[in-house]
Amino acid sequence: MSSKSDMKLFTLNSNAPLAREISEILEVPLGKSSVVRFSDGEIQINIEESVRGADIYLIQSTSQPVNEHLMELLIMIDAMKRASARTINVVIPYYGYARQDRKARPREPITAKLIANLLEDAGVSRVVTLDLHAPQIQGFFDIPVDQLLGVPILAEYYKEQGIEDVVVVAPDTSGLSRARRMANILDAPIAFIDKRRPEPHAAEVMNVVGSIEGRNVIIVDDMIDTAETIIQAASALTESGVKNIYACGTHAVLSDPAVTKIENSPVKELVFTNSVYLPEEKKIDKMKTLSVGPLLADALLRVQHEVSVSALFN
Amino acid sequence: MSSKSDMKLFTLNSNAPLAREISEILEVPLGKSSVVRFSDGEIQINIEESVRGADIYLIQSTSQPVNEHLMELLIMIDAMKRASARTINVVIPYYGYARQDRKARPREPITAKLIANLLEDAGVSRVVTLDLHAPQIQGFFDIPVDQLLGVPILAEYYKEQGIEDVVVVAPDTSGLSRARRMANILDAPIAFIDKRRPEPHAAEVMNVVGSIEGRNVIIVDDMIDTAETIIQAASALTESGVKNIYACGTHAVLSDPAVTKIENSPVKELVFTNSVYLPEEKKIDKMKTLSVGPLLADALLRVQHEVSVSALFN
Amino acid sequence: MSSKSDMKLFTLNSNAPLAREISEILEVPLGKSSVVRFSDGEIQINIEESVRGADIYLIQSTSQPVNEHLMELLIMIDAMKRASARTINVVIPYYGYARQDRKARPREPITAKLIANLLEDAGVSRVVTLDLHAPQIQGFFDIPVDQLLGVPILAEYYKEQGIEDVVVVAPDTSGLSRARRMANILDAPIAFIDKRRPEPHAAEVMNVVGSIEGRNVIIVDDMIDTAETIIQAASALTESGVKNIYACGTHAVLSDPAVTKIENSPVKELVFTNSVYLPEEKKIDKMKTLSVGPLLADALLRVQHEVSVSALFN
Amino acid sequence: MSSKSDMKLFTLNSNAPLAREISEILEVPLGKSSVVRFSDGEIQINIEESVRGADIYLIQSTSQPVNEHLMELLIMIDAMKRASARTINVVIPYYGYARQDRKARPREPITAKLIANLLEDAGVSRVVTLDLHAPQIQGFFDIPVDQLLGVPILAEYYKEQGIEDVVVVAPDTSGLSRARRMANILDAPIAFIDKRRPEPHAAEVMNVVGSIEGRNVIIVDDMIDTAETIIQAASALTESGVKNIYACGTHAVLSDPAVTKIENSPVKELVFTNSVYLPEEKKIDKMKTLSVGPLLADALLRVQHEVSVSALFN
Amino acid sequence: MSSKSDMKLFTLNSNAPLAREISEILEVPLGKSSVVRFSDGEIQINIEESVRGADIYLIQSTSQPVNEHLMELLIMIDAMKRASARTINVVIPYYGYARQDRKARPREPITAKLIANLLEDAGVSRVVTLDLHAPQIQGFFDIPVDQLLGVPILAEYYKEQGIEDVVVVAPDTSGLSRARRMANILDAPIAFIDKRRPEPHAAEVMNVVGSIEGRNVIIVDDMIDTAETIIQAASALTESGVKNIYACGTHAVLSDPAVTKIENSPVKELVFTNSVYLPEEKKIDKMKTLSVGPLLADALLRVQHEVSVSALFN
Amino acid sequence: MSSKSDMKLFTLNSNAPLAREISEILEVPLGKSSVVRFSDGEIQINIEESVRGADIYLIQSTSQPVNEHLMELLIMIDAMKRASARTINVVIPYYGYARQDRKARPREPITAKLIANLLEDAGVSRVVTLDLHAPQIQGFFDIPVDQLLGVPILAEYYKEQGIEDVVVVAPDTSGLSRARRMANILDAPIAFIDKRRPEPHAAEVMNVVGSIEGRNVIIVDDMIDTAETIIQAASALTESGVKNIYACGTHAVLSDPAVTKIENSPVKELVFTNSVYLPEEKKIDKMKTLSVGPLLADALLRVQHEVSVSALFN
Repeated sequence: MSSKSDMKLFTLNSNAPLAREISEILEVPLGKSSVVRFSDGEIQINIEESVRGADIYLIQSTSQPVNEHLMELLIMIDAMKRASARTINVVIPYYGYARQDRKARPREPITAKLIANLLEDAGVSRVVTLDLHAPQIQGFFDIPVDQLLGVPILAEYYKEQGIEDVVVVAPDTSGLSRARRMANILDAPIAFIDKRRPEPHAAEVMNVVGSIEGRNVIIVDDMIDTAETIIQAASALTESGVKNIYACGTHAVLSDPAVTKIENSPVKELVFTNSVYLPEEKKIDKMKTLSVGPLLADALLRVQHEVSVSALFN
Repeated sequence: MSSKSDMKLFTLNSNAPLAREISEILEVPLGKSSVVRFSDGEIQINIEESVRGADIYLIQSTSQPVNEHLMELLIMIDAMKRASARTINVVIPYYGYARQDRKARPREPITAKLIANLLEDAGVSRVVTLDLHAPQIQGFFDIPVDQLLGVPILAEYYKEQGIEDVVVVAPDTSGLSRARRMANILDAPIAFIDKRRPEPHAAEVMNVVGSIEGRNVIIVDDMIDTAETIIQAASALTESGVKNIYACGTHAVLSDPAVTKIENSPVKELVFTNSVYLPEEKKIDKMKTLSVGPLLADALLRVQHEVSVSALFN
Repeated sequence: MSSKSDMKLFTLNSNAPLAREISEILEVPLGKSSVVRFSDGEIQINIEESVRGADIYLIQSTSQPVNEHLMELLIMIDAMKRASARTINVVIPYYGYARQDRKARPREPITAKLIANLLEDAGVSRVVTLDLHAPQIQGFFDIPVDQLLGVPILAEYYKEQGIEDVVVVAPDTSGLSRARRMANILDAPIAFIDKRRPEPHAAEVMNVVGSIEGRNVIIVDDMIDTAETIIQAASALTESGVKNIYACGTHAVLSDPAVTKIENSPVKELVFTNSVYLPEEKKIDKMKTLSVGPLLADALLRVQHEVSVSALFN
Repeated sequence: MSSKSDMKLFTLNSNAPLAREISEILEVPLGKSSVVRFSDGEIQINIEESVRGADIYLIQSTSQPVNEHLMELLIMIDAMKRASARTINVVIPYYGYARQDRKARPREPITAKLIANLLEDAGVSRVVTLDLHAPQIQGFFDIPVDQLLGVPILAEYYKEQGIEDVVVVAPDTSGLSRARRMANILDAPIAFIDKRRPEPHAAEVMNVVGSIEGRNVIIVDDMIDTAETIIQAASALTESGVKNIYACGTHAVLSDPAVTKIENSPVKELVFTNSVYLPEEKKIDKMKTLSVGPLLADALLRVQHEVSVSALFN
Repeated sequence: MSSKSDMKLFTLNSNAPLAREISEILEVPLGKSSVVRFSDGEIQINIEESVRGADIYLIQSTSQPVNEHLMELLIMIDAMKRASARTINVVIPYYGYARQDRKARPREPITAKLIANLLEDAGVSRVVTLDLHAPQIQGFFDIPVDQLLGVPILAEYYKEQGIEDVVVVAPDTSGLSRARRMANILDAPIAFIDKRRPEPHAAEVMNVVGSIEGRNVIIVDDMIDTAETIIQAASALTESGVKNIYACGTHAVLSDPAVTKIENSPVKELVFTNSVYLPEEKKIDKMKTLSVGPLLADALLRVQHEVSVSALFN
Repeated sequence: MSSKSDMKLFTLNSNAPLAREISEILEVPLGKSSVVRFSDGEIQINIEESVRGADIYLIQSTSQPVNEHLMELLIMIDAMKRASARTINVVIPYYGYARQDRKARPREPITAKLIANLLEDAGVSRVVTLDLHAPQIQGFFDIPVDQLLGVPILAEYYKEQGIEDVVVVAPDTSGLSRARRMANILDAPIAFIDKRRPEPHAAEVMNVVGSIEGRNVIIVDDMIDTAETIIQAASALTESGVKNIYACGTHAVLSDPAVTKIENSPVKELVFTNSVYLPEEKKIDKMKTLSVGPLLADALLRVQHEVSVSALFN
């Protein structure tokens, strides 16, 4: 029913290079639009071509500055809805606020759910995203969510590098399932870093649980934000006598001073994807970016042609 | 049914001094809460006392940086809702994005409505606000909205000053009703500034419509943002031979370089309220701030005691 | 995607001649349906052809008797929804209750919003309308609203008449922006009628603000209901020594005894559109009707073909 | 929790005498409000006292003119909601459009459901009503509905009259359950009128099914609209040799020319309640009105005091 | 717009034979899916082919075990919605819980409405069903409901049998309209069974109202559950000296021990449809099943081709 | 505002003993109600006392048979809502279907979210629950959810037993955070069981990661269903030379043949709570039940008195 000619691709400000890459792969031009910021900080959206009856694909990571990027997205959705778009498909390679996904303490918000509600309320038809911090966030929506996976891209990279004697390490207790998934592709064992306070008020002690001595380790996480978790893990691993320490994650949030810390850490190489746009000045030799453009482009085409996206779930 | 003891006042970051003033007038302490901003820009809200069963009054203008302040507000509302507050009353002295209240051109969003929807969706029970850019914004909500008026406060100030021979001037065609309302209190005639392009592609010409020669004029607007409108109006008025030029508005958005422009303009004095927080470094001698704290405090008490707010509508 | 063959046009009772005109222009027949009124006043709707899967365009002004016409519309929408129409597009040339668009006094309803909610709740997909009393009423809806403009049609008429030395006059403080829009097309200055009570309890005094002496004036309003506003304006203008007085408005509500008043007034000609059906017995020589049929027909075709309606916004 | 002092009673235009009766029984004054009808037919509601925090009971039958009375009700509810009423309880003694409760033919609306949706959408908290045409209409709502019964009031009247040898007759096939309920109170047998077309295109034949010869019959229906059903039934019964014919129904819609028909019919007495207001000029000697005021007053008091209404369900 | 190639048929566990029959008539294969029941009773749904963009027709009676079948249906709908089906059309030949359609006593649920809400909430686009217990249940939904009728199938069967001197009998006061509809097709008179308690605390007495002596009677009901109603009616009829007693109903719920009771009753033959699946071991010679497969298949095809279903409403 | 006298406790069928225990602790009697199951499997709810204006606490685990217990709960909520309960608080000690909390494979439902939606749709005001399978399920709701924790109760039991040299073991990669929480209370290290397939198509190998030799191990999980996970973990631990194996979990689902397997396993003792009712015949000496009654009773009282529940979150 739906053909590529009905498809319109739009980008906002958070990750225009990735949007352009997808546009080139799909041979669908980016729609004309602009975001104006007035001197009082208010955003004005201008959509400069008709979207009436079109299937819109709107590409925007809710990365830093997250509140600005989120409001850009919500306002654009409102404009698209009122301009009679047929469907509004939002592509969020990096879904911000995902760590606020439950009440861990009394009177906490569940901001990841709030944002799902705001998106649905504004008029989204479908979400395409990548490696949600918790897979349950899919259930925060009542519209179709296609969650693609970054771990296979990262694992494939390591396979190509031909690193031997690998152990995949989760840097905390909540990342074991992700580590196991990567280890399955690499046919490797897993370990994790346990944090424990030996007695009340004493300092936390990092402890490696699992056999890692003399092996190459790959620390895997879903996002690298302050890089504190990875740095601490790397430090604990170094003390345990490992060979080389590699680290990877899907989303390179890299809040300051993460890059400096990584530069100075025992981590040999940090690999991530371009789900979050990384400005040139933040790039260092130790870091390697893999593109999720082809994966996303393939997914959008399948969505538009209404064929199964499930082949991309491996 | 509802007593003052059930009332809890909270503030966020946009206008804490006004919140403190209201708290002091009401003799109700501000609830303990904090807003943390992580290095990646995400906001974390901590409510540090029980709100279960309480009637919450949350004070936050959605002034610059508007998207940050709006997200603070939405996340706080989500937290309050999940923490079992009985009612969540949001006090928004300055309602940002109010000028985006209609589709003026094709494919425009109606952001003022989007925000009303987001607030209702997050869980607000009621809105108390001041001088909406358009009164129809009340109808963007399906919950009770109490709109208070700043014009009487401004007019009262001029009455006290005893300025004579006054004409109230609207700086554009849309502000005539507001000018008429102020002129009624001051028992004065009105005029307005008409902008007209004498022929296509020619420069716009400002034209004063109404009799103003030799009189004191008061320019009145709902908000002073870049101050461009007021400055242009003042310039046109000067050419028409008026006596003194006064200007006023409820909301002092004052985006840069508004303050400098006003300093250098023929405007003798600019009066506004503290609905938007103005940092010390922006204050100049020509500007005078009137407080809406007593008005808002009175309104909140009436809401909590469930008595009519209508006495405040004059 | 959507073709003219999926389009079905229906009319209800408020303005069948306009619906027939649109039907003829589009060469799309009016669907078979009838409205029966039982002796107890209840309305029964009969749709006498299949609407399953069709794109419905339902033409109905909510003009007098407004409550009857509104209920006809709501019941028809319910019937269409349950009969599996694909989309239900409601064409409301005159949107009744539009003046109740805000709480002007305590405890007022916002009936224009209530009606927007009722229409959405009943199942409308989109609204096409003409010159809303306030443009913010678009934001009362969360579905697409295409608002067409009657002012250009009226202005074009005056241009064709070749009237010279024109001033466009707003009959009250809220109509200045509309006057400015018409004046732009006619390349004319503007003025307005100010109502002021010289002292408490004294009678209101009408005052013309702006230069009009010896010129032809065109009073413009969005709707002419009791005609009181226009008649008073004309009277004030006459005293000010104008040449000829013309008056126009998009919507000819013309509640009794408006026609008689106009007949006896100094207004030389009153021009309006056929957005509201005017029975033959109400027509007098002084009045001139311009048709919005071609404008509406063009808009519906663009909606159905999913091309931009924006070309009609000038 | 809720006390009588929080209770505010309001009436609209359809049945003010019944509202006054309830007000007197409850010793709760009717709230001050007025309904203005502008010359163009639009309704304006004025609520002239504070309703903030109050439990509102709004009394309005949606009787003829049904669309006017319904719109009055919806607009009043909108005003009450925006004026911060705590609960809005709508008392609808006669629920109009109740016969449009299902799709009997293709493409029919289900207007009784539409109206339930409109009421909920406008902001009603609860409905109190009397003898719905079909009890399933309770399920059209997702808010509490208290349906009171008129049949016991009617039956009690006949018991007091001491009529002997009674058969209760349903005038068509759908009213048998109602007839059985009345017959249980009167300890009587039942019969019904069957309409059958002996051969295609022949006239319909009325047939009494059940033993009635020589007995007093009471025809019972939920509403008497055109009275056609009852008159035809009476005529068929007369041919079957009954003694006296009595007729009753809860709701006296009595569209013209029902009263004249009843006057000239073999019906000896027609009894109904004051759920619908009957103007003096429609009253004839044969008709007898019983008041539902005490029943409704008792129900409202129970609702307000939050005690069970179930004692009234017999 | 919609073609048969977009149509996907799925069945769940309640009536797979009927689904297969419809699949064969339509020449549309049943989609691959399975329902797994874990050892703790939880249901897992597996949809084993893509449904993205498809028009789904999901066939499931909510027959015994009703709660299991209902949850299967709701979970399947959730899966279909999240898997991006274009429309989800639910075919419910037998709609369970339909007798709980009103509050007959205080504090009763209206479960038939609850289920309508649950279905809409889960994501259903349309319902196709057969002989609802009360036609008002259509109004419990706000989406299109196509209700097909089983009575014509049953009546047609009797016409073919050529039974003479027929009276159609309703087994209680609420079934008269159904009996009249069947009698119209058979050109027959009607009667009903009245239950009356001659004095308080005495046993209920069954009474046949109408002339039946010496005639063939057909008892008609919408569903046969415990068969108690039919058996009692048959017993009352036998005492009244009828010729043969036939019984029929659309839905053969046949809870134990209904079959044994019917076997031992004076009912000569019981006819029903396959809306509810009847296992082989429950079949006895006296019972005859008519298929609704052709009727449903025809309806689904009309829905998919977006042509009127109304031809099937006779 | 809310007092204990407004509190009404009700139970359904899944865990009446726990409800009675809570009732006794609170000294609030269980409300009178019954659940009737008709022979066709439909549920009828009878609430035998007024609930008008009351704060209802409804205790029901959605344990096996989960679909029956869930429908009981939904129907009861519908009845409570229509009977004018003020708030409907649902206490779900064990939340069934919690493992279906994300799309793990294409076209899977998210049943845990579906159920959250159904509960909200039916009319729930608040949920009180215990140890959700994933804490993100809180975010599936938009109403307040109070999640209490069972791990402290289990850990406290082991502390009282004085077991030494403990290692807490997660039986799979997803349970590490729970193990860490328990280990913190016991001041113990943690380990986990890793499942790995050494080569494609080979059998899965269980591997203990972490130091456990010669120590007492406590396997901790949130629920014990088939017990397969625990049994396999125990078997892998035995091979690794541990001292004693203890196992615990909050929810004792114990589907057949879990009890037999545990009886025959190396697990020395299995401890769980009474969140799920365990019939006498399933109890064996090795199993120990701890009551969550006091914890739940305390929580309900705090909810009703509107004081903070957070003291219970440790």
